[in-house]
Amino acid sequence: MKPRILITNDDGIHSEGIAALESAMNEIGEVFVVAPESEMSGASHSLTLGRPLRIRQIDEHHWTVDGTPTDCVTLAVNRILANGKLPDICVSGINHGANLGDDATYSGTVAGAMEATILGVPGLAFSLVATRSHDFTESARIAADVTRKALAEGIPEWTLLNVNVPKGTPKGIRVTRQGFKEAKPVISEHIDPRGKPYYWIGEVREGFRAAGGTDFEAIDEGYVSITPMRTDLTNHGALEGMKNWEN
Amino acid sequence: MKPRILITNDDGIHSEGIAALESAMNEIGEVFVVAPESEMSGASHSLTLGRPLRIRQIDEHHWTVDGTPTDCVTLAVNRILANGKLPDICVSGINHGANLGDDATYSGTVAGAMEATILGVPGLAFSLVATRSHDFTESARIAADVTRKALAEGIPEWTLLNVNVPKGTPKGIRVTRQGFKEAKPVISEHIDPRGKPYYWIGEVREGFRAAGGTDFEAIDEGYVSITPMRTDLTNHGALEGMKNWEN
Repeated sequence: MKPRILITNDDGIHSEGIAALESAMNEIGEVFVVAPESEMSGASHSLTLGRPLRIRQIDEHHWTVDGTPTDCVTLAVNRILANGKLPDICVSGINHGANLGDDATYSGTVAGAMEATILGVPGLAFSLVATRSHDFTESARIAADVTRKALAEGIPEWTLLNVNVPKGTPKGIRVTRQGFKEAKPVISEHIDPRGKPYYWIGEVREGFRAAGGTDFEAIDEGYVSITPMRTDLTNHGALEGMKNWEN
Repeated sequence: MKPRILITNDDGIHSEGIAALESAMNEIGEVFVVAPESEMSGASHSLTLGRPLRIRQIDEHHWTVDGTPTDCVTLAVNRILANGKLPDICVSGINHGANLGDDATYSGTVAGAMEATILGVPGLAFSLVATRSHDFTESARIAADVTRKALAEGIPEWTLLNVNVPKGTPKGIRVTRQGFKEAKPVISEHIDPRGKPYYWIGEVREGFRAAGGTDFEAIDEGYVSITPMRTDLTNHGALEGMKNWEN
């Protein structure tokens, strides 16, 4: 039996990254693409609760949703694919741009994999660390390798894998921890045609501590970074020291 | 010097919960309210990158933003309050409804505190575990106590506190870990006036494992739950066992 592979992303169904990921996954199993109609970068793990959602079926294997990556995965698992067998794995991406350090917490790509994990489907997020290059060849190859390994060996419980692939040909793979970004966001002020100010939050890719063992360090040195991430946000190490907060 | 307290939420600036929180914080320090113009439930840690944002100043201490709680906090810290001293603490809420277990990952309330933490400002998120009751008296009192303690003693580094307050009078405070929700989301299908289907993702509050030491258990037993949460999503315990993924 071919594995059933759910594909989503946050750049939208028409992006080059999801096409590259789908091509790679077609070699491995039966794919089901459920992706946002339009770009959803920065969507994080947001779920659309305040308005209805539309599902548009394109063909037997492709659907769009006018919502976030999290909406796509919950609709895929609980509705679109709910009559058949659940997917064996969910892959999200390939994002055009890095999801490293704290930025992972804003990422719709990572959130797609997180939602799958919460729903009991192993989740993998793939990102290409590039701003100009749109060459997804190497990142699609890495996505195929990592997905094959995850299907064969499984991944840790309640854990998704956040995979970032550097530009060019990677030197190898490193298992990493989430690093820290040092850059502040750039908020630019502009004036609209009516003379009123508006603000735009800029994405900052530069400025990080390439501390030992982090995702930033691996990418900086030309390696693929795989960070296992939990859906349990608890700082378990802090529980004991906070006993004096109880009463 | 009075502490400077940044207040945000995800139910919007006109909600009862933020009014109750502001009253409580006025007893402790100088407050700056920067909150979403409208309800943003389920916004998670999403950041608005694809469109500009408007900031509307209401008076010397109140601003609205047409975006998410994360937008509010980053604009507050990096723009609105950037000319003066940074806030000493950021409090988010009081959310009308629980943010327990996995639901914390979807929460705009929790995300407001998370964004503050990432920007170096200690962050606290407050939620009232109630669907019908709008009585914020006890939760506002708890918010004041917890904020005073956090200001006096500090909180663990890179950690926010996710505080949930049960209905009625709490029996006390428990420091907890994030629990697991067992309920599946309910996705309802409806037909629009043109005969086309649309879908609505329902919030499910019921169904959880009240496992020992979890937020669910504390609330179930009538206690306030304080869960320390990290902005570092790494599953550190899984790093060693994944060494064979490297090459």
